[in-house]
Amino acid sequence: MIPTLQWTSEGVSFLDQTKLPQVETYVLARNYNEVADVIRNMVVRGAMAIGVSGAMGVALGIQQSTAVTLPDLNAEVEVICDTLAKTRPTAVNLFWGIAQIRDLYNKLAAENVAIDEIKSQVVALAQTLYDEDIANLKVLGAYGADLLPKEGTILTHCNAGALAACGYGSALGVIRAAVERGYKIDVFADETRPFNQGTRLTAWELTKDNIPTTLICDNMAGYFMGQGRIKAAIVGADRIAANGDTANKIGTYSVAILCKEHGIPFYVAAPFNTIDIETLNGKDIPIEERAAKEVTHVNGVQVTPDGVGIANPAFDVTPAKYITAIITERGVLRAPFEESIAAMSKQTK
Amino acid sequence: MIPTLQWTSEGVSFLDQTKLPQVETYVLARNYNEVADVIRNMVVRGAMAIGVSGAMGVALGIQQSTAVTLPDLNAEVEVICDTLAKTRPTAVNLFWGIAQIRDLYNKLAAENVAIDEIKSQVVALAQTLYDEDIANLKVLGAYGADLLPKEGTILTHCNAGALAACGYGSALGVIRAAVERGYKIDVFADETRPFNQGTRLTAWELTKDNIPTTLICDNMAGYFMGQGRIKAAIVGADRIAANGDTANKIGTYSVAILCKEHGIPFYVAAPFNTIDIETLNGKDIPIEERAAKEVTHVNGVQVTPDGVGIANPAFDVTPAKYITAIITERGVLRAPFEESIAAMSKQTK
Repeated sequence: MIPTLQWTSEGVSFLDQTKLPQVETYVLARNYNEVADVIRNMVVRGAMAIGVSGAMGVALGIQQSTAVTLPDLNAEVEVICDTLAKTRPTAVNLFWGIAQIRDLYNKLAAENVAIDEIKSQVVALAQTLYDEDIANLKVLGAYGADLLPKEGTILTHCNAGALAACGYGSALGVIRAAVERGYKIDVFADETRPFNQGTRLTAWELTKDNIPTTLICDNMAGYFMGQGRIKAAIVGADRIAANGDTANKIGTYSVAILCKEHGIPFYVAAPFNTIDIETLNGKDIPIEERAAKEVTHVNGVQVTPDGVGIANPAFDVTPAKYITAIITERGVLRAPFEESIAAMSKQTK
Repeated sequence: MIPTLQWTSEGVSFLDQTKLPQVETYVLARNYNEVADVIRNMVVRGAMAIGVSGAMGVALGIQQSTAVTLPDLNAEVEVICDTLAKTRPTAVNLFWGIAQIRDLYNKLAAENVAIDEIKSQVVALAQTLYDEDIANLKVLGAYGADLLPKEGTILTHCNAGALAACGYGSALGVIRAAVERGYKIDVFADETRPFNQGTRLTAWELTKDNIPTTLICDNMAGYFMGQGRIKAAIVGADRIAANGDTANKIGTYSVAILCKEHGIPFYVAAPFNTIDIETLNGKDIPIEERAAKEVTHVNGVQVTPDGVGIANPAFDVTPAKYITAIITERGVLRAPFEESIAAMSKQTK
């Protein structure tokens, strides 16, 4: 079990993903501001992980509040939620996680529940969201494994694994479920420049689980598809619009186009809380631009000449037309996604 | 003028491309074995540059021979050519360059020309090939510039620049020619993992020439095409088959597919000696697999977890159907390439 993040009596403990794979070390966020820092600095990353991190951050902030009246606490909760919501813009799970705790808080506050009881209930909910994340991903994994071939190579991009969630993973959860069934599957992992989530995280967690993994550079995926080597591609998601357009790590869009050109199925695996029905299509998803230094420096050493411009969009949007299916814990969505997503949204959880 | 390689009285001098952009330093190859080493270790790289390097290596070997009879020298020339030909398998220009000197040698030896005179003539030819490379690329650049838009962003992959040739460059020669005409062009350069020719070489030489350049990760090209940012893509080539299928740096194939999907022209720029009419189609082009360390290490530091597999094909083949035009110093080739290439091959140079 990979301890991506954990609620502890002293705060929230995070496996420092910026240090992997060389060093397995932990960062303790002792208050909600420190939780915001670890999200912003990508000590923790991955849509599902930052969703629960956001929830834990709000719960931690409420738990540590010294407010003695509800009006005072209300004001603090606003600041706590705002601080955490401003850390990263693209993954909707972050806003979902924050909203889960805030909604419970608002309900209890409206009922004039005692502050100590509120604290206890929001902390309990944060821990429940953690448990549900893993449970949902195991259900999702089983749905996804039904779609994979019984043997062959699966391509993945970035890290939608245990490290991107509270455990198990979405895209890598599907692979884990297939391997648990005895499928003879191996994985090609894209490096995923510039943050190298494939190199550092996917290769690390799959190798740890003895799932045969080959690391390739992002620009090699097309070559191996052309050789007939890739049977399917599966990725995670940071936000799925109401029409199925999917924001995910930069480069996902290219993988999807390459899959289309080679007739290879392209799957998105994401818990249902990644779907944002308020966002009608991919054009409305904000794309985070991150610091140039992620591109210019590797291990602290500058690799670029001075004077060159740098672009570093952290995500791209894959239009729904390139997506074979979206795998969630509620089942598998297929085109027309606008309809299948709307129908699934109406189901009780 | 970037001194990629130069014939000197002590041997062949090479700008060490493995050290760029941090350090501008030179390696002197004092004999043909050292020329083979610098080609193998990619101190010099790029199809055109290693073509002339191969020619200079053979000329240097012949010049330094102590053989006093032609049969002895014949045997040495065989070894010299074999050694240089075994350094890298994909770029046909290497074999072309070696053959230029060997063919002249064979002709002179068959005529029983004195060894000193042979030495003088092969060295002169090597220097002529150097001059012709630059002259050809300037003509090629002018043909190519006719195809570019008068303003906008051009994408390139790897380095088909002055550093990949004796000067000026093929793909970057076209860009230089367009800029010389006053076109308002800027360049997006793919990093080109794992050897980072885009980061280290293309960004370096274009910035040095004050051509506005933005470095992007390989997996970002599709995103910027989707945004309408890229007006054309232009790359070099390591070998072009008789049907137009083109081997070039790994990732070129993916760029070509992304261009097709976005309706963006995809140009190959290469001197005519890159066309290998003996190779009927791309399936017959040998693809070099290079050392895993190029992927696992950056600046000497291991970035991958232990136990993960690595793939490192150095080239891929772009089928002719994805290529808008092939730009050479003899003119612009268009589909059907089998016919246009055959017709141009019959032209006298």
